[in-house]
Amino acid sequence: MLAPSSPDAQNAKEPRLIELRGGLGAVPGVSLTGVYAGIKKHKRDLALVVFEDGQNGVSVITTNEIKAAPVIVSEEHLAASPGKMRAIVCNSGCANACTGERGELDARTTARQAATLLGLAEKQIVVASTGVIGVPLPMERITQGLERAAKEIEQGAKAAYAAAEAIMTTDNEPKLASYAFHAGNKRYVVGGIAKGSGMIAPNMATMLAFIATNAPMSRDALARELREATDASFNMISVDGDMSTNDAVYAFAPNGKGDAPAGFAEALRLVTHELAYAMVRDGEGATKTLSMTVSGARDERQARTVARAIINSNLVKTALHGEDPNWGRIIAAAGSVGAGLNPQTWSLYIGEKLWVDRGALEVLSEAEAHAELEHKAVFVRLDLGIGDAGATGWGCDLSSDYVRINAHYRT
Amino acid sequence: MLAPSSPDAQNAKEPRLIELRGGLGAVPGVSLTGVYAGIKKHKRDLALVVFEDGQNGVSVITTNEIKAAPVIVSEEHLAASPGKMRAIVCNSGCANACTGERGELDARTTARQAATLLGLAEKQIVVASTGVIGVPLPMERITQGLERAAKEIEQGAKAAYAAAEAIMTTDNEPKLASYAFHAGNKRYVVGGIAKGSGMIAPNMATMLAFIATNAPMSRDALARELREATDASFNMISVDGDMSTNDAVYAFAPNGKGDAPAGFAEALRLVTHELAYAMVRDGEGATKTLSMTVSGARDERQARTVARAIINSNLVKTALHGEDPNWGRIIAAAGSVGAGLNPQTWSLYIGEKLWVDRGALEVLSEAEAHAELEHKAVFVRLDLGIGDAGATGWGCDLSSDYVRINAHYRT
Repeated sequence: MLAPSSPDAQNAKEPRLIELRGGLGAVPGVSLTGVYAGIKKHKRDLALVVFEDGQNGVSVITTNEIKAAPVIVSEEHLAASPGKMRAIVCNSGCANACTGERGELDARTTARQAATLLGLAEKQIVVASTGVIGVPLPMERITQGLERAAKEIEQGAKAAYAAAEAIMTTDNEPKLASYAFHAGNKRYVVGGIAKGSGMIAPNMATMLAFIATNAPMSRDALARELREATDASFNMISVDGDMSTNDAVYAFAPNGKGDAPAGFAEALRLVTHELAYAMVRDGEGATKTLSMTVSGARDERQARTVARAIINSNLVKTALHGEDPNWGRIIAAAGSVGAGLNPQTWSLYIGEKLWVDRGALEVLSEAEAHAELEHKAVFVRLDLGIGDAGATGWGCDLSSDYVRINAHYRT
Repeated sequence: MLAPSSPDAQNAKEPRLIELRGGLGAVPGVSLTGVYAGIKKHKRDLALVVFEDGQNGVSVITTNEIKAAPVIVSEEHLAASPGKMRAIVCNSGCANACTGERGELDARTTARQAATLLGLAEKQIVVASTGVIGVPLPMERITQGLERAAKEIEQGAKAAYAAAEAIMTTDNEPKLASYAFHAGNKRYVVGGIAKGSGMIAPNMATMLAFIATNAPMSRDALARELREATDASFNMISVDGDMSTNDAVYAFAPNGKGDAPAGFAEALRLVTHELAYAMVRDGEGATKTLSMTVSGARDERQARTVARAIINSNLVKTALHGEDPNWGRIIAAAGSVGAGLNPQTWSLYIGEKLWVDRGALEVLSEAEAHAELEHKAVFVRLDLGIGDAGATGWGCDLSSDYVRINAHYRT
């Protein structure tokens, strides 16, 4: 996905992307931290992110009809404060969802308290929560945690790791990604942090991502870029096919005129892709990842629909877990979503090898296919043999550990 | 679901349903058997069902775009032979799906061989297969098995058990159901056999069901009755959310004029409900069932959509498995399908007890809710608080055994 390099690339000032450490902490003007507020046991559980200057803020949020209070409140704030957003408060350990009027009140109180501590207005704050549904926010702990966080915020990678840790639920590792690019004489950074490892479905999940850049653009341009990057990343992953009440991706950028600088879209795509792939790799109980490419499709929409159906299938996930070359399950999943497949024209590839030719002929032996499935990262491609479009989705296997983790989920 | 009994019910000749043993074997005029043909190891794997007289045959088949050869061939035969269908051949151990031209040829050859043995025409036969995808039918074994089956067919419950066993894949027990009813002076029977325990999703599954009656009706009436009964039973169950290439429900009845006799619809509903519920109870790795009723819905369609979303959720399934009263997962699943929920008006019940009142207020303690979840059969009701319609779906839990069974699936 990197821009092709040519001998005169640097002179021609083509966008070149440089990977950075620190995720959200690599973005100039961002201070942050993650503290232990006592919402979870013995783990950081409250993140605070502060922007030096007012930002445009946009979101892609869950399509679940039951939306958590912080999602509703934050939408209101983003709309009310174009160019003026200044901070994010995010807690783990409690989703503040299905908490009725009290939940909304608590979300607003959280924003107001953060605003007071930072000398800002309530509507300049985005609030987010993740964890158990149906339990009210422990407001005293949030208040005390916020006070400490406001004193501790700082710039850089270490603080970003603390913030990324504080938003984790069943995640095993913090998720950060950041890239720099040059446009004209300017150097810009896109960075983000994210959480998510269960309730992960195509079309968002129990996932949160916070992304920022110092590249200026209009609010509309930022919204468009985020939508496109999200559709190709967070909306193309699956751990268990469940969709949460709290999913949200927020992106922030300084207000500017018109489109983003050249290179931004690519940098944002890399950041969102890395964060999304990190969720799949860290999927609850996951031992393997599946990169599922659908090629030869009529259009991108068809390719995405089919790829999502495959990565979302429990039977594909269990076959992956058992390294069982049961390609029939891949095809059955592909056919299940009414995407307009032609039963005679599809071919299946694993790694770089042709696996099943045109709808029927198994080319690889079971042993050969099994060998490909032994890798930690498995690559499968289904060519529909219909057109020229393609898309890729990312999934993981379904293991007994997934069941163990989710049969007795506690914060 | 039984008709209400009143003191003069028998005199008034209201439909009264009597449960029978023997499933398909309880239907007059039906002979059948299940034999070991060597497709699976040491297990019956070929069923033959023969009708004494020509029947109308109708089907509800998988909506998967990748349809197995026998599904395609049988559709052709049902359309070509109204009032003349005479037999069913069904093998397990091999799905004859994704087997290209050869697969279709094999399905036709199977029908022709059965027809020859029984003195019938090829198009009077329904063929069905279930098992692994992508492997061709072992035709020699089918041929030999058919010869033996044609000699062994007989009437009655014992033969029906053998047939029901022969269509099993990962099923632990054969599935049969049959009911008698009286209409006018006549006694009629509806009976069926079915298989299915994995790849079970709303909208069919790796399931097959064969249902017959001696109650005459038009082919249109039979098709309508089967569609309605299927929508309320086989299309309302979930083991793992996967949809197969081979799903089909076939129903047969003597040709008659107009509608089915009074009592038929109710008997068919009981038969399809019992077969569907048997699949869930026998779900791969299942230790519990969930009867999920959605009430207070705008219409039946909304109620069904929401019930299906809940029984299909991996997180609901794992919570059920762990007897974890995590009601947020039920609500998150309900909200995920764009069915038009009102976040403020829903209430949740478990057993007969109010669990969560109007969107937020948890009424039962965690211990009380947990106690309800300890039952083998768990009953949950979500009242949407919108209208008066309702529907019920049936699911099972997701256990480590499901993963074990499906990570290394062999016939």
